[in-house]
Amino acid sequence: MNDIAKKSVIIEPPFIFKNGSVFSDPLTIVYETLGTLNTKKNNAILVTTGLSPSAHIASTADDSSPGWWENIVGKDKPIDTNEYFVICVNSLGSCFGSSGPSSKDPESGKRYRLSFPEISIEDIASSIKPVIDGLGIERLKAIVGPSMGGMTALSLINQYPNIANELVLISAASSSRPFSIALRSLQRSMITSDPDWKEGNYNVDDLPLEGMKHARFLGMITYRSPTEWNKRFGRKLIQNIAEGADLFGNRFQIQDYLKRRSDDFISDFDPNSYLYLSNAIDAFDFTEDSHDIGEKVANLDLNRILIIGVEEDYIFPFQCQEDLYNAFSNQKYSVELLKLPSINGHDSFLVDHENFGSALAKFFK
Amino acid sequence: MNDIAKKSVIIEPPFIFKNGSVFSDPLTIVYETLGTLNTKKNNAILVTTGLSPSAHIASTADDSSPGWWENIVGKDKPIDTNEYFVICVNSLGSCFGSSGPSSKDPESGKRYRLSFPEISIEDIASSIKPVIDGLGIERLKAIVGPSMGGMTALSLINQYPNIANELVLISAASSSRPFSIALRSLQRSMITSDPDWKEGNYNVDDLPLEGMKHARFLGMITYRSPTEWNKRFGRKLIQNIAEGADLFGNRFQIQDYLKRRSDDFISDFDPNSYLYLSNAIDAFDFTEDSHDIGEKVANLDLNRILIIGVEEDYIFPFQCQEDLYNAFSNQKYSVELLKLPSINGHDSFLVDHENFGSALAKFFK
Repeated sequence: MNDIAKKSVIIEPPFIFKNGSVFSDPLTIVYETLGTLNTKKNNAILVTTGLSPSAHIASTADDSSPGWWENIVGKDKPIDTNEYFVICVNSLGSCFGSSGPSSKDPESGKRYRLSFPEISIEDIASSIKPVIDGLGIERLKAIVGPSMGGMTALSLINQYPNIANELVLISAASSSRPFSIALRSLQRSMITSDPDWKEGNYNVDDLPLEGMKHARFLGMITYRSPTEWNKRFGRKLIQNIAEGADLFGNRFQIQDYLKRRSDDFISDFDPNSYLYLSNAIDAFDFTEDSHDIGEKVANLDLNRILIIGVEEDYIFPFQCQEDLYNAFSNQKYSVELLKLPSINGHDSFLVDHENFGSALAKFFK
Repeated sequence: MNDIAKKSVIIEPPFIFKNGSVFSDPLTIVYETLGTLNTKKNNAILVTTGLSPSAHIASTADDSSPGWWENIVGKDKPIDTNEYFVICVNSLGSCFGSSGPSSKDPESGKRYRLSFPEISIEDIASSIKPVIDGLGIERLKAIVGPSMGGMTALSLINQYPNIANELVLISAASSSRPFSIALRSLQRSMITSDPDWKEGNYNVDDLPLEGMKHARFLGMITYRSPTEWNKRFGRKLIQNIAEGADLFGNRFQIQDYLKRRSDDFISDFDPNSYLYLSNAIDAFDFTEDSHDIGEKVANLDLNRILIIGVEEDYIFPFQCQEDLYNAFSNQKYSVELLKLPSINGHDSFLVDHENFGSALAKFFK
C-alpha cells in the first residue's frame, strides 16, 4: 500500500478463479478511502460498486474530481466521513486500475484480452478481502452494495460470514432473472458482433464503438424508467432540426438525450471489461449450492440489514429485494425493507440523492 | 380486384402523403378476405395489423397455411366467419404485396428504397379506404386494430368518422411514449448502422442481417414480459453445452430461445419496411391537431367500443388504453375497458388465444 488517494494491493499468485483457472501472475486491486480509520478499526464501511464505476466514490484532498456517489459519501454527507472510514474498491475485471482483460501480462507486455480467466462475482468478492486485511480491519462496520455491488456484498458475507456487522443491499438481487439476462445478452452480442471487436483483440485506438454505443443506449433505456421519461421528455420535439435531415434521424428530445449520453460513455470503458462483468452478473447465483436464500443466510453474523429498492427496476425488480428481505426476516435478522418513491428506475441510487441520502443517513446515524 | 385469396386494389396517382410528398406512381394495396359479404354489406369487419403481419390473417380454401391470427378468425372462431366478412389489409409500406420501399419503380424497374416517401399511420389508413370502397362497403360492422393497427384504426375513424359501427382497440395507444420511442430508435439504429444496410440500398442477397437480428432480439425481449419468462425459463440452463464453448456464448435457455427466434424472423421482413413502419409508430399522434383525445373523438359515429390491454406492456402500457377509455367514456360513448390477465406482454393478443378469444367472441356475439 502507498499513501496516495488511489491505493492498491497486489495479490500474489496463484489466484484460483471460481471456474478453476489458476492465474499465475500478480493481481492488482485498486481502492480509494475517505475519512479516518479509528484506533479500534471498527468504523470502516466498504462500498462494492455496480458494473461501471471506478473506486473514485467521492472527491478527496488528493483527487478533487467528483466521485460517482459524490452526494452520498463525504463530510456531513449521508455516509459521513467525519465518523466513518469509507473504502471503495474497483472490481476485479474492471478497467480503472484493478486487473482485468485490459491489463498487461507482465511477461509478454501485451494485454490479456480474452486470455484473462472468466470472472465471477465470487472472484470479485474474494479479491476484495486482501484490501480489508491489508488495512488491518478484522470486521467491517458495514458493507454497502448497490446493483452488482449487492451481489458482491452477498458473496463476501457468504465467503466470510463474520466480515461485517451490517449489510446494506441497494437495488440488488441474489441472482439475475431471465428478462435482465436477455437484455445483457443482447448488449454483449452488440459488442461482440461489431467487426472492430476482433474477437476481443481490438486496437485501443480503434474500439468497437458502434457496439459499445448500442449496448450503452440499451443500458440507458433499461436502467431508467418510463415514468421518468414521461415526465422529463414526453413527446417533446428537438428544436431546429435541419432541413433535409435523415428520414430516420432523431426528432424527439428523448432520442437526442440517449444518443448523446451513450456517445459520452463509451470512450471510458474497456469493451472486454464490460463483457466480463456483464457475464458475471448473469452467472451469479447466491443460492447455487443450497436450497434457497434462507438456508444461505442462516448462519451469518450480521446485526442489522437494510434492503432498498424502487418500483420500476428492469434490472433487479423489487421482487428481488422482497425475496432477500423475506429470507433474512424468516431467519430472525434485524432487517428493514424500503421501497423508495424514486422514479429513476434501477439507476435511482445514482440520481435520487434525496431519497437514497435520507435512507442511508438514517441507517448510519 | 380479382378473386384469388390475396386480392389487391390499385390506387391511381397522385397519392399525397401526409408529409406533402406527391407520389406519381400507382400504389398497390393487398388484402385478404374470409367469409361472405352479405347483401346489405353490413357484416364486414376490417382488421388493421401491427408492424409485422401480412394480410394472411387465417387459412382459407385458397391458402391453407396458418395465418397470424389463426385461432381468432375463421369459422366458429371468436371472430366467426360464418357470420362476418373479415378483411385484413397488408399495410402500405410493408413488404407482403402492398407498396413500400422494397416495391419496384415501374419506370426504372428498380426498388424505390429510401426514395419512397416517408409513411405515416395516416397514409396507411387512407390507403385502406379504397379497399373498403372497392368492396362496395359504405359502413363497416367494425374495425379491429391491435398494436400499430390500433393507431391505423384511430386514424381511419378520424379521417372517415362514419366508417364503422364498432371499434376494437387492442394493446394500442393514441401516441407512442418516450420509453417505446427509445426502444424503436435503438432498433432502427442497429439496422442503419449495419454496414450491409448501405444507406438503404442493400443487395437482396446480402441483407443487413446482423442489424435485423439485433433489432428483432430487442423486439422479442420487449414485446413479451418478465413474468412470462420467469415462468417459462427462470434460470434454466441449456443442456449439453459443448466443452470449450465461447466465453460469452449462451448458457441459459432464455438466451437460446431468443437467439433462435430472432434468427428465424429476419429473413422474412424487408429492413427498410421495418424502418418506415417503426418510424410511423413513433411519429403518430392522434391528438396532434387538437387539445386532447376527448376533443378528437367528440363527433364520431361509433356505437360500441371495446378497448383491451394487459398488465406488462412495454410498447403501449395499459395507461395508454386507460387514456383512450377515459376519452371515449367522457364523451358518453358505449365503451368497455378490459385488462386481460395475460402474461405475454404486448404480444399477448398473438399468443393468449384463450383470454383474447373469449373477449372478442363475447363482443361479436
